[in-house]
Amino acid sequence: MGKIITFGEVLMRISPRGNKKFIQSNIVEFYFGGTELNVGISIANFGGNVKHISAVSQDSIGEIALAYIRQFGVDTSSIFFSKRPLGVYFLEVGAVLRPSMISYNRSHSAFSEITPEKVDWENALEQGTWLHWTGITPALSKGAFDTLNAGLKLAKEKGLVISADPTYRSGLWTYGQDPQEALTILLKNSTVFIGGVNEINEVLGTAYGFSNKEFVEASKQLIATFPSIEKVFDKIRTSLNSSWHKIRARMWNGTEFRETEDLDITHVVDRIGTGDAFSAGLIYGLQQYDDYKAMEFASAACALKHTYEGDVNFATVNEVINILSGDTSGRLKR
Amino acid sequence: MGKIITFGEVLMRISPRGNKKFIQSNIVEFYFGGTELNVGISIANFGGNVKHISAVSQDSIGEIALAYIRQFGVDTSSIFFSKRPLGVYFLEVGAVLRPSMISYNRSHSAFSEITPEKVDWENALEQGTWLHWTGITPALSKGAFDTLNAGLKLAKEKGLVISADPTYRSGLWTYGQDPQEALTILLKNSTVFIGGVNEINEVLGTAYGFSNKEFVEASKQLIATFPSIEKVFDKIRTSLNSSWHKIRARMWNGTEFRETEDLDITHVVDRIGTGDAFSAGLIYGLQQYDDYKAMEFASAACALKHTYEGDVNFATVNEVINILSGDTSGRLKR
Amino acid sequence: MGKIITFGEVLMRISPRGNKKFIQSNIVEFYFGGTELNVGISIANFGGNVKHISAVSQDSIGEIALAYIRQFGVDTSSIFFSKRPLGVYFLEVGAVLRPSMISYNRSHSAFSEITPEKVDWENALEQGTWLHWTGITPALSKGAFDTLNAGLKLAKEKGLVISADPTYRSGLWTYGQDPQEALTILLKNSTVFIGGVNEINEVLGTAYGFSNKEFVEASKQLIATFPSIEKVFDKIRTSLNSSWHKIRARMWNGTEFRETEDLDITHVVDRIGTGDAFSAGLIYGLQQYDDYKAMEFASAACALKHTYEGDVNFATVNEVINILSGDTSGRLKR
Amino acid sequence: MGKIITFGEVLMRISPRGNKKFIQSNIVEFYFGGTELNVGISIANFGGNVKHISAVSQDSIGEIALAYIRQFGVDTSSIFFSKRPLGVYFLEVGAVLRPSMISYNRSHSAFSEITPEKVDWENALEQGTWLHWTGITPALSKGAFDTLNAGLKLAKEKGLVISADPTYRSGLWTYGQDPQEALTILLKNSTVFIGGVNEINEVLGTAYGFSNKEFVEASKQLIATFPSIEKVFDKIRTSLNSSWHKIRARMWNGTEFRETEDLDITHVVDRIGTGDAFSAGLIYGLQQYDDYKAMEFASAACALKHTYEGDVNFATVNEVINILSGDTSGRLKR
Amino acid sequence: MGKIITFGEVLMRISPRGNKKFIQSNIVEFYFGGTELNVGISIANFGGNVKHISAVSQDSIGEIALAYIRQFGVDTSSIFFSKRPLGVYFLEVGAVLRPSMISYNRSHSAFSEITPEKVDWENALEQGTWLHWTGITPALSKGAFDTLNAGLKLAKEKGLVISADPTYRSGLWTYGQDPQEALTILLKNSTVFIGGVNEINEVLGTAYGFSNKEFVEASKQLIATFPSIEKVFDKIRTSLNSSWHKIRARMWNGTEFRETEDLDITHVVDRIGTGDAFSAGLIYGLQQYDDYKAMEFASAACALKHTYEGDVNFATVNEVINILSGDTSGRLKR
Amino acid sequence: MGKIITFGEVLMRISPRGNKKFIQSNIVEFYFGGTELNVGISIANFGGNVKHISAVSQDSIGEIALAYIRQFGVDTSSIFFSKRPLGVYFLEVGAVLRPSMISYNRSHSAFSEITPEKVDWENALEQGTWLHWTGITPALSKGAFDTLNAGLKLAKEKGLVISADPTYRSGLWTYGQDPQEALTILLKNSTVFIGGVNEINEVLGTAYGFSNKEFVEASKQLIATFPSIEKVFDKIRTSLNSSWHKIRARMWNGTEFRETEDLDITHVVDRIGTGDAFSAGLIYGLQQYDDYKAMEFASAACALKHTYEGDVNFATVNEVINILSGDTSGRLKR
Repeated sequence: MGKIITFGEVLMRISPRGNKKFIQSNIVEFYFGGTELNVGISIANFGGNVKHISAVSQDSIGEIALAYIRQFGVDTSSIFFSKRPLGVYFLEVGAVLRPSMISYNRSHSAFSEITPEKVDWENALEQGTWLHWTGITPALSKGAFDTLNAGLKLAKEKGLVISADPTYRSGLWTYGQDPQEALTILLKNSTVFIGGVNEINEVLGTAYGFSNKEFVEASKQLIATFPSIEKVFDKIRTSLNSSWHKIRARMWNGTEFRETEDLDITHVVDRIGTGDAFSAGLIYGLQQYDDYKAMEFASAACALKHTYEGDVNFATVNEVINILSGDTSGRLKR
Repeated sequence: MGKIITFGEVLMRISPRGNKKFIQSNIVEFYFGGTELNVGISIANFGGNVKHISAVSQDSIGEIALAYIRQFGVDTSSIFFSKRPLGVYFLEVGAVLRPSMISYNRSHSAFSEITPEKVDWENALEQGTWLHWTGITPALSKGAFDTLNAGLKLAKEKGLVISADPTYRSGLWTYGQDPQEALTILLKNSTVFIGGVNEINEVLGTAYGFSNKEFVEASKQLIATFPSIEKVFDKIRTSLNSSWHKIRARMWNGTEFRETEDLDITHVVDRIGTGDAFSAGLIYGLQQYDDYKAMEFASAACALKHTYEGDVNFATVNEVINILSGDTSGRLKR
Repeated sequence: MGKIITFGEVLMRISPRGNKKFIQSNIVEFYFGGTELNVGISIANFGGNVKHISAVSQDSIGEIALAYIRQFGVDTSSIFFSKRPLGVYFLEVGAVLRPSMISYNRSHSAFSEITPEKVDWENALEQGTWLHWTGITPALSKGAFDTLNAGLKLAKEKGLVISADPTYRSGLWTYGQDPQEALTILLKNSTVFIGGVNEINEVLGTAYGFSNKEFVEASKQLIATFPSIEKVFDKIRTSLNSSWHKIRARMWNGTEFRETEDLDITHVVDRIGTGDAFSAGLIYGLQQYDDYKAMEFASAACALKHTYEGDVNFATVNEVINILSGDTSGRLKR
Repeated sequence: MGKIITFGEVLMRISPRGNKKFIQSNIVEFYFGGTELNVGISIANFGGNVKHISAVSQDSIGEIALAYIRQFGVDTSSIFFSKRPLGVYFLEVGAVLRPSMISYNRSHSAFSEITPEKVDWENALEQGTWLHWTGITPALSKGAFDTLNAGLKLAKEKGLVISADPTYRSGLWTYGQDPQEALTILLKNSTVFIGGVNEINEVLGTAYGFSNKEFVEASKQLIATFPSIEKVFDKIRTSLNSSWHKIRARMWNGTEFRETEDLDITHVVDRIGTGDAFSAGLIYGLQQYDDYKAMEFASAACALKHTYEGDVNFATVNEVINILSGDTSGRLKR
Repeated sequence: MGKIITFGEVLMRISPRGNKKFIQSNIVEFYFGGTELNVGISIANFGGNVKHISAVSQDSIGEIALAYIRQFGVDTSSIFFSKRPLGVYFLEVGAVLRPSMISYNRSHSAFSEITPEKVDWENALEQGTWLHWTGITPALSKGAFDTLNAGLKLAKEKGLVISADPTYRSGLWTYGQDPQEALTILLKNSTVFIGGVNEINEVLGTAYGFSNKEFVEASKQLIATFPSIEKVFDKIRTSLNSSWHKIRARMWNGTEFRETEDLDITHVVDRIGTGDAFSAGLIYGLQQYDDYKAMEFASAACALKHTYEGDVNFATVNEVINILSGDTSGRLKR
Repeated sequence: MGKIITFGEVLMRISPRGNKKFIQSNIVEFYFGGTELNVGISIANFGGNVKHISAVSQDSIGEIALAYIRQFGVDTSSIFFSKRPLGVYFLEVGAVLRPSMISYNRSHSAFSEITPEKVDWENALEQGTWLHWTGITPALSKGAFDTLNAGLKLAKEKGLVISADPTYRSGLWTYGQDPQEALTILLKNSTVFIGGVNEINEVLGTAYGFSNKEFVEASKQLIATFPSIEKVFDKIRTSLNSSWHKIRARMWNGTEFRETEDLDITHVVDRIGTGDAFSAGLIYGLQQYDDYKAMEFASAACALKHTYEGDVNFATVNEVINILSGDTSGRLKR
């Protein structure tokens, strides 16, 4: 397995302990995250060779962001320092009927003020075989969109596999760019599409429904529109409430529709980054297994992420495979 | 909505973290609470204009009790200082088959030694439109009973709506007063009765059963006995165990019986103050909605309280309405 | 009820808070445990008169291990100091699909290097009426096996009841001794066998299946082989996942097969030491009740242990009996 | 004593515990501060009637900033919500030879994007008798400068006393305004100048030295240049190292030079906000005492602030007076 | 060395971490203490055989108070359960110029409501050779005074040595008893007087000054008045501020005046219980050494106590002797 | 500056918070350390290129040890996994008159059971220009001694500079090897000797006194005995007590004696690893500066380490130089 490259913002996450609200205690915890970084770290925890490209602040917060990333063995040599502060998000983890809540402080962050000339893509992609991007990056700023676009073009030329998680978040995209147009440009070179009917509808301007049948039709139209796309993987979450979810996945790989069984997550610890854990499992899995087993691996990885606080999936390959082999009983390991 | 007045003891609550017992760690957390204060703070969190009347100790604990209450925007100008210490309660939060346990240190507290002449009710009730009391206060001491009685009389004269939560707790009432007799005096001027068949039986000396039919009959007899009472609201808790409850409510408003669906609280964080959250929701709701919607609002508020540590319900009106609109999935809010 | 003697290693347990992994925080908690000590402390919490025999390190860790045990009123006068360090185990508590994980640092510990001459069994067993041992001790080292064997012989001579929990853990037993042979020697003098078909198969070299019928057959063969054994008690755990277990038990006492209903533990806090809580409940119960009620008591005690962090069962007799009487609703105790 | 008005940014302060660095623990504490708010809260803790004018973010962080301020009884009715995030600063508290370090994330904050039309000064200054400002505000943005300027003009018209702490911090002032020019405009209406020769040199473009003689000369020139200024107060810190400071003060009130003795702070807990505590002591003292005693009060208040974590001075008037009366022995108060 | 008996209230101490105030964090720590218990535990930590006589609440707080005491090996068999709550004190630890502050909640506590018939002194004093009391106990309530008096009489009859620390705290003594009269009664049977000129003046109604000469004269008059008293020991604290103290001691033993050198405590961690550590050192020392060395031992023990959080002195005999031998450099022990 | 290689045990350090003892709280903190690793990490924090060679346990503790080291950018590619547990040490940090105390659990650790064939020195030393060792390693086990010896020989052949800190700790060295003999073998190839008269006396069997004159004579004899040694650097600590130290250094570089001024560390936070910080400063400094300035740099680095909890020196080159330039006032850095 070659070198996997991720590109995106590094955010400091600050949250009260457990299910507390900020008003309940002035003692809080921080982690680092960011959707693409989460994917990178998770793959590194599977044993993958990962480099993350980003910008961090030139202060003690930026320094510990780098230290945090380095501890997982992720290559930080293409992360540069900026005079702007690191983006921050504040999270209150909900419970049962109470949703989790996030406030962002990222709009003039070190990463948001990135521009294409600040990233030496030629150097950054060296030895890379796979590049992963998400729809968060182009939503942040014109500079972020342009920088990503430059990277994708070069990656395509160099023959990297490109996976796209075009998550659409309407609250971002405030700088004037039309999301559909931007995603259309960026998807041109992508190979693996990680998203469901909502994301496809957003990109194509269509209105497909949720059924498996419509998912397949939507996927076919997506592939027809973006011929570089070969496969579509859709992670499906069923939320009984904030504390009890079920996860399954379905796929269309151009020839075959498959779906997995629900994994029952009866006591959610932290749902942030579970989608990223799915992407990471998929990127790892597609390089080790066939499409269906890769999707199963990704689903189990995603399910495991719900048991870890923070953005990061700490699951190892053995822990994921243990679930795939049917052992979901959580028996004590000595 | 006018000014809502609450009157009752302010208690310091001390508890170990999470589900620990005191013997497991010498690091503990404190909050402030007290059934009527909880109601007041919850209404303030709904945006209401609230004043709380009480007595606190003249030391650093009393000072921070005031600071704690003030942070919610509750008017503390009718809370006076006493030479006696603030009441304390020690709580161990249970789990599954293990009940939560409470020990009190309140019997000679700043509030217990209150007497009618210490409260300037005329001044305290100024601009008030609603007064809420509970059965805890008259149980604490003769002075507390007399002071409450004086306040209720004046409130009646001034035309305030009076809501009563005549919770009966046999472990209190140690100073010689007959509970039934006391409650009978206090209920004379009350308008809204927040309680079920147990509370009615206690007050009337009857033995109604739990069925809806008996609830209605009991409510009718209650209203017949206390003509000022217009409506009866009963919150019903079904406990599978310490960690898994269901909440619903029923009402008789003199003409109509209604009941709500169960709200399923699969992972209880803290059940203290959930009844108070119901009362607060009702007091707020009855001033905004019809009786049934007020009860629904109160039930959802009560359900949400189970997700917050401490005595206080932090839920906002929007969060409660979100549940009423059917969104109980706890979806992340960005 | 006379004096109950337990013999075995005291371990320091170090674990991150809640469901965290060590990599997530450098702030951790420690408790003390060890399977036989857990049994002893639990019986002391039931009001029993308990002495624990062991060895601890001659440093501040050994000192606080003693202080920890003393706080429960357990007699520590037969615990001696050794120049070797106290054994340590590192625990990460899992959640849902993620198993808990344990690493040990015990192989050259104060207890592992015990030898028969270091324990004055004559003195240690004074006033004892019951001795409990487990299969962990003979697995640790030749010295531990020999020391236990010496103690069992003397206990038998002195007429103590001997209960055995021959838990088989293959990862231990590294010093060359054949487990089956060792257990055969040790079981010769035992009266109460706490274990199921797996443990019986291990001891007898048989292959009985899990059904009640086979359990009874296996028990009969066990008793036939070891005539001192009078009763067999088997605790059965059903794990939906790391966070949701069910517990029941079954028994064969030479004349009667009985089994209990499942107790549903919907939110597991900590499963370490739950088997020990069962043993403790049984040892206490068999001295107070008939065999079936003792087993019910043990099952409820075991279920309650799942709600406490750490190795120790804090449940009191009243709390256990409360569950036996059918109150599993976890209603708040004031 | 009338109503004291403070105007300035509210910052969230995030710092590791004790003397730790961020890299040493992911558990951190937050407080709220900001130089003018610190002054306001300190005066409120002296019993003063204080209003703070500012802007906070419209999210849970802004909400708790308000709650934090409210707990001290400070009037928050002129603090408005903004769509921008709250400013944040990250602090590592040094020790001995190691300096404390601060990183800011405030340049596009809720307050920085303030403009004069967002503040209803007429309403905000109602009942005000004193307005305090610092040199931080005009350094933040053109909008902050203009808004402050508008407020000062109206305050002057309305006859409020105006105190100025023109702290010069070169790292701010990035938006193009010349600091000297800005301060010259703002000082035109000020009455009390809180600063020393450095600040005077900055404003006048002079080069006075540190001696008392030069301090008096500089003060005279300052008063000559800004006739509204009546008095100059200068707090002097002598730092042996990060953990051991001495504090004294000197003044020129147009007719008299005075200076206080050193107060020896042998174990500094937190030096942030100590200058603000001096300003608060002065504003309070000048309304209660003569100039020299006010300066003594301010020095003792400043010294006490070094013993509290966070930005806020919790000292009460009695505690300050206790030091003035010569009791610096820290004798236990029961 | 025989069995040392201490008699007095057990208090729960609750305090914020480090130098924080309660308003700064809702996370606090608790310990148990009480002046006579502190003496007992400290002697147990020196290896002494100690029994403490007291009353605790019949709830989880009383239970853990017992567990806390038991961990030090102190005999708790003469501590009985009461229906009243355990006394609590709230402590804010000061720093530098800021005094520590204490609020009590003890006036109707389990111990305060003690009466002579509740203590079986005959049984409690069994095997006792030394009884220690302080002036706190008779100040709490009539019952406490009477109970202590009964104990002292029996102790005298049985020939125990009686040490008295007649600390006078005017804020207590609210129940009507004249302190001087009470102390006169109680001192009649005492042997060792631990106190200085203030305490002697209080007892005798004299006005001796602080000089060594007057100390000796005062001691002589004390011994003349109370012939059972043989020796007077006076611990002298010099406080530069809350964080920097010096400790020395002086004595008059009927024939000889001696004083020790100052021990310099440059960084006070916690001064609560340091007087009790002196008493404990003295009681231990007088049974091992001559009077002067006992006083030196007591002073060093007292000095060491300043380095431990909480009421309890954890110092061992070796650690105290290490200081007596001149090693105050705090060199690392491996 | 080339690649600096360090070789030695990685230890997990577990300690209570602040100055607490283990008995005071079951919440503790862990870091990783080990004398040679401390040197390596400190050099990495100066910007150096560092590789550490060691063995860690094959469990979650070993994994996070690696992650901990990686975060500083230290190359971990020559650290291998072992089936033995990681060494642990338990530390109680003293205060004032109370010494810090350490207990070890390292005698059968992953590193102690190292043997020469487990380390591929050829590969490990690749690109190395400097190798640092200490006297701890040969004291641990025969295997550790032999492995170090093999590495030193190869390093000498390859022309690396070799620095030796032959700290002698008598409590180790339990496996039978004579320390003087071992150190004599290992020093044969060393270039820089970091130690004072005690260490020289230990190695040479001499009895030099502490004066500068004797230090120079001892150094001369050392260099005469070990001709590869070019320079001797001696760090001198003066301890007023556990909380107040002074640090200075002296050197003999074959031609010149120099010594530095005392640096006054009035409030020691953590003294563990301060000697390692000196070594790291020296290794870094000798590659950047002349001998005297390198020693000054080392002393300032050592002094700064006293302000950080844990084994590791976080000081950067700028922070050290700031002190060298005379700024020891700890002025706040924004």
